[in-house]
Amino acid sequence: VTKNIASRQNAWFKRVREAIREHAEEIVIEGPKAVSDAIASGWTPIATITRGEEAAQSLPWNIEPVIFAPELFDALTETRSPQSIIGLFERPEARFAELLERRETVLIALDGVQDPGNVGTIVRLAAAFDAAGVALLPGCADAFGPKAIRASAGAILYVPVVNVTYDELLGCGLPLHAADTAGELCDPPSGEAVIVFGNEGAGVSDELIRAATLIAIPTSARVESLNVAASAAILLSRSFALRGQR
Amino acid sequence: VTKNIASRQNAWFKRVREAIREHAEEIVIEGPKAVSDAIASGWTPIATITRGEEAAQSLPWNIEPVIFAPELFDALTETRSPQSIIGLFERPEARFAELLERRETVLIALDGVQDPGNVGTIVRLAAAFDAAGVALLPGCADAFGPKAIRASAGAILYVPVVNVTYDELLGCGLPLHAADTAGELCDPPSGEAVIVFGNEGAGVSDELIRAATLIAIPTSARVESLNVAASAAILLSRSFALRGQR
Repeated sequence: VTKNIASRQNAWFKRVREAIREHAEEIVIEGPKAVSDAIASGWTPIATITRGEEAAQSLPWNIEPVIFAPELFDALTETRSPQSIIGLFERPEARFAELLERRETVLIALDGVQDPGNVGTIVRLAAAFDAAGVALLPGCADAFGPKAIRASAGAILYVPVVNVTYDELLGCGLPLHAADTAGELCDPPSGEAVIVFGNEGAGVSDELIRAATLIAIPTSARVESLNVAASAAILLSRSFALRGQR
Repeated sequence: VTKNIASRQNAWFKRVREAIREHAEEIVIEGPKAVSDAIASGWTPIATITRGEEAAQSLPWNIEPVIFAPELFDALTETRSPQSIIGLFERPEARFAELLERRETVLIALDGVQDPGNVGTIVRLAAAFDAAGVALLPGCADAFGPKAIRASAGAILYVPVVNVTYDELLGCGLPLHAADTAGELCDPPSGEAVIVFGNEGAGVSDELIRAATLIAIPTSARVESLNVAASAAILLSRSFALRGQR
């Protein structure tokens, strides 16, 4: 057992810090419940890092932990629980073609959604309303960063998320719908379609607006727009209800 | 003109810092657009603090600013804009009785909603779907803290928000409805009612659950619950649509 690691020069420390900051090929999941759920979902940890020896003794699975001294562990994460652990995982890879196969429901595309909390909340909504997955266009926050993972409340473990280009989305063969205040006050599609949600300030980009059927959500005149996650909640919930009525 | 204040011992600095941290009798609004909107909404600033002299020269209104040296200003706020300003205001006071007068629409009550981003987002939804106001039960984040104000996207300026006790809510004379996964899959009321949304983890407290009609939102079996702001978006949007059909 590698225990009581206290140096910031330690290779595991550097690797986990890199995964938290950059979330490139490797990502982290924080907390015993979340790591345990990830393993139950079929994810295999590269390493499990515990905060001290006490947390190592209570691990519910049979993986040799890497034990960090509490001070070193606390330098990595905002989680301030004495029993805490971090799982280091390979970043999951889904393919856009797989998402396009589930045509009975809608596919979500996000266009420049910058706030990781919004991206994670929409991943959670994709699970709640059984969307085929989430396609991230350029300019979106990474769905595998710590804030987005927390906001997804576990849904990141099983909702397929892919990065796509505008050309890939425009050529995907499904009709595009986009949430836009200039759209019609109509129901969203219940399947066989993409629903695009846009940037927090600028909305959906012109290129997609021109190619999409625009859907507006009825509101009072007192606001200019809704928060993007609120728009997604309303349209995806309605889409799911309509699918149930088919 | 009081200009180029650079000391952390300055009385205005201490007073604004207190308002940002404690948001008790005095609160702050950050950014030229938001402060300008607040003044347009009839709020009167106690003071307008600018980041340096340049920001002071571009103020669109006729109020003598308090000019902070940029370094001192930056110690107060996360806003990192060279033209930035902060408005110090008295905390607005609404009365619960006033909110109860608008019976043609629903009143929102939040029960232990801890995250200021969720409270602010729901204030924004109250504006979007023309609710009578937002009543905060014990355990809620303050709607007048900086994070909640930002999440409200300006709606905090005109949506009435009050703190209430459980007894006040239970005795308010309107039927109570609560969002709860154990409820019926039915439509929310369109008026003459309170809709309660609960804590991020524990949901609505038992005392209110016993007194309320419980409404559930149809979801797939893949999630245990929805984010509280997502639940509010879905039920308030539906309530607003039903009111339009009356």
